[in-house]
Amino acid sequence: MIPIHCPHPFFPEDQTTPIPGYPLSKLAHEVGSTPFYLYSRAQLSDRVRRLRQFLPKAVALHFAVKANPMPALVQHLAAEVDGFDVASGGELRVALDTPMTREHISFAGPGKTRDELLMALAAGIILNVESEWELQQIHQLGQQYGYRPRVSLRVNPDFEIRGSGMRMGGGAKPFGIDSEKIPTIVRALDASTLTFCGFHIFSGSQSLNAEALIEAQKKSLELALWLAHQCQCTIPFLNLGGGFGIPYFPGEQPLDSQRVCEALAHALPAFQAAQPQTRLNIELGRHLVGEAGYYVCRVLDRKISRGQTFLITDGGLHHHLSASGNFGQVIRKNYPVRLISQIATKETETVTIVGPLCTPLDILADKMTLPRAQVGDLVVVLQSGAYGKTASPSAFLGHPPAQELLI
Amino acid sequence: MIPIHCPHPFFPEDQTTPIPGYPLSKLAHEVGSTPFYLYSRAQLSDRVRRLRQFLPKAVALHFAVKANPMPALVQHLAAEVDGFDVASGGELRVALDTPMTREHISFAGPGKTRDELLMALAAGIILNVESEWELQQIHQLGQQYGYRPRVSLRVNPDFEIRGSGMRMGGGAKPFGIDSEKIPTIVRALDASTLTFCGFHIFSGSQSLNAEALIEAQKKSLELALWLAHQCQCTIPFLNLGGGFGIPYFPGEQPLDSQRVCEALAHALPAFQAAQPQTRLNIELGRHLVGEAGYYVCRVLDRKISRGQTFLITDGGLHHHLSASGNFGQVIRKNYPVRLISQIATKETETVTIVGPLCTPLDILADKMTLPRAQVGDLVVVLQSGAYGKTASPSAFLGHPPAQELLI
Repeated sequence: MIPIHCPHPFFPEDQTTPIPGYPLSKLAHEVGSTPFYLYSRAQLSDRVRRLRQFLPKAVALHFAVKANPMPALVQHLAAEVDGFDVASGGELRVALDTPMTREHISFAGPGKTRDELLMALAAGIILNVESEWELQQIHQLGQQYGYRPRVSLRVNPDFEIRGSGMRMGGGAKPFGIDSEKIPTIVRALDASTLTFCGFHIFSGSQSLNAEALIEAQKKSLELALWLAHQCQCTIPFLNLGGGFGIPYFPGEQPLDSQRVCEALAHALPAFQAAQPQTRLNIELGRHLVGEAGYYVCRVLDRKISRGQTFLITDGGLHHHLSASGNFGQVIRKNYPVRLISQIATKETETVTIVGPLCTPLDILADKMTLPRAQVGDLVVVLQSGAYGKTASPSAFLGHPPAQELLI
Repeated sequence: MIPIHCPHPFFPEDQTTPIPGYPLSKLAHEVGSTPFYLYSRAQLSDRVRRLRQFLPKAVALHFAVKANPMPALVQHLAAEVDGFDVASGGELRVALDTPMTREHISFAGPGKTRDELLMALAAGIILNVESEWELQQIHQLGQQYGYRPRVSLRVNPDFEIRGSGMRMGGGAKPFGIDSEKIPTIVRALDASTLTFCGFHIFSGSQSLNAEALIEAQKKSLELALWLAHQCQCTIPFLNLGGGFGIPYFPGEQPLDSQRVCEALAHALPAFQAAQPQTRLNIELGRHLVGEAGYYVCRVLDRKISRGQTFLITDGGLHHHLSASGNFGQVIRKNYPVRLISQIATKETETVTIVGPLCTPLDILADKMTLPRAQVGDLVVVLQSGAYGKTASPSAFLGHPPAQELLI
């Protein structure tokens, strides 16, 4: 059996728009031009609500702004989630402009610059420290400017999420401080000059395997307890990372997040018995916003070359690099794609959908069966709410940028 | 023997700057911040001069602006080359601001928008037509606004450069019009409403194999003659495409461009006998600018994780996607990289150089042996003059953009 894309949670196959009541052709006029990214407030909120249904009350839900830093979207989520994690000074500015309490904003990422560290110190957010050198810089800057740093240590665990989409923990890594070095560092912290906020344990991302995530969370809780014991400390905050994925490709099934949350609820009491005061959180990016976002472009040309039908659109890899298969993927696979015809048709055809860039890398859909298309029809790439616009080379070949719309 | 990077034409290993007299640390101050792209006027001119030495006088040398659309650099090349090829309305604006004669500017690329076609018609440049539908649009717009279109047909040949880095010709392609369809189209052109300018035959890019390029050029000339015969037409302009590569990875050797040019000189008389009035050109991007550009970033942190040394820099894939191995490469290989120490050292070490992005994809050099580095040292990625800044996701994770400097 040929693998197919799993059903979409918000955009059933028989609908012509992902946001009921808002036809895509009308939205294209509202935005002023194609291509554009469309995000749904209701769908963002729905995803948060479904997670909260099963997530233990004691575990806060944070949003990793890097997945989608559109200011309006971050504003919307400020009322929905319990905290933000940022990855740069730029993202910090977006987060600081929301009503989110600064105590619940953290900043992780290797190679923070002096300016970024100073921004974070002045803002009073938590700095997730990535190295001993960074800790020294933070300490010096705090002393120099009279800010009391709030630091959490990012731990490079000695494990990672099995089969995770991105390996970010385990072995030698540029992220965080190796877990075995942590006790010495924590014991040397000077409580008179900085506030120790706990640990950030990040073991991977984009996993659809509930068992692997359950195992990683269990190991993270064990590692935190071991660290607390070795450091002789209490843990004010514990960031368990994320890793919750979404299905992109044919054959992939959605993550059973209910099972992951229930397993976390089950594992929690043992941790809380030892560290009753710890405020725990998970930090999700893609899983919160990925399925609530759509990339919409328009068919500009339709041509048949040596028996193969090509649709040329105004959208492509300059707006949506990952859908083109050029961002961390070894073998290109198709994202789920819908064709929205101007004139209803029952006829289907197998087409390759490409963008306007003069490069064979610029493919949005390779040999997919879709309703027969005409020039002017709209192409919708699903699963586009995370790592879309900002993760793409928008200046490539000098085409206009994609617009964004949050409805 | 382990493959190594071939010697650089402009930046010998024993030098500390690629531009004699301009120390990199001084240039960093001049730009105001790291990271930055540095381009050399002298090296750009040198590359053009060396090509002209062997390129037949009858063959014009065009620059494919997409390789590097920095306005100052395009201005510089306007005085060096004979024409520009652009791939979008954005690039056309850059080209029109230079002193380049409009007759020598052409615009290729699938999915040109109505606005782009109108810009091109108004400017009087040559439109390289990618499909029959596009030809119709051009004709209609010309009639509607009273502009006489100058059109060349982009031909999808039935061959491609053997082993070419990017396959852009042969088989079913979104680029150009299948060669076998061309005669019918040319015969139907209405000389009273448009000017037929000839053909654009593009069979591949980034080739280091002189024999493969010679073969592709020979086939392109033959195809053009066959087309002229079938169409019963003369060919005013013939764009033979490019395909001249530069060496990026260990084990690669520079293209013997002298041999390619000499073979072209040898093949030309037969073509000219049949089509004496044709103005020929080749169109090069990467080969003209790639080696005259350098990406310079700074070491922000140095850490050892489980036995492996990492240098964390302020530069990364958000500025230089292809050096990270994430743009059309199946297996990541290292670009040539230099470490410019603040303090001279004879000690070396094996390091992995990464950027500040919270993703394991953000690698600039994997396990390279370089002089021992300290925080503050500069890292220079060579072969960075083409498809660097504009081909990278500059908004990714909200870090500042790379600056550019042309010296």
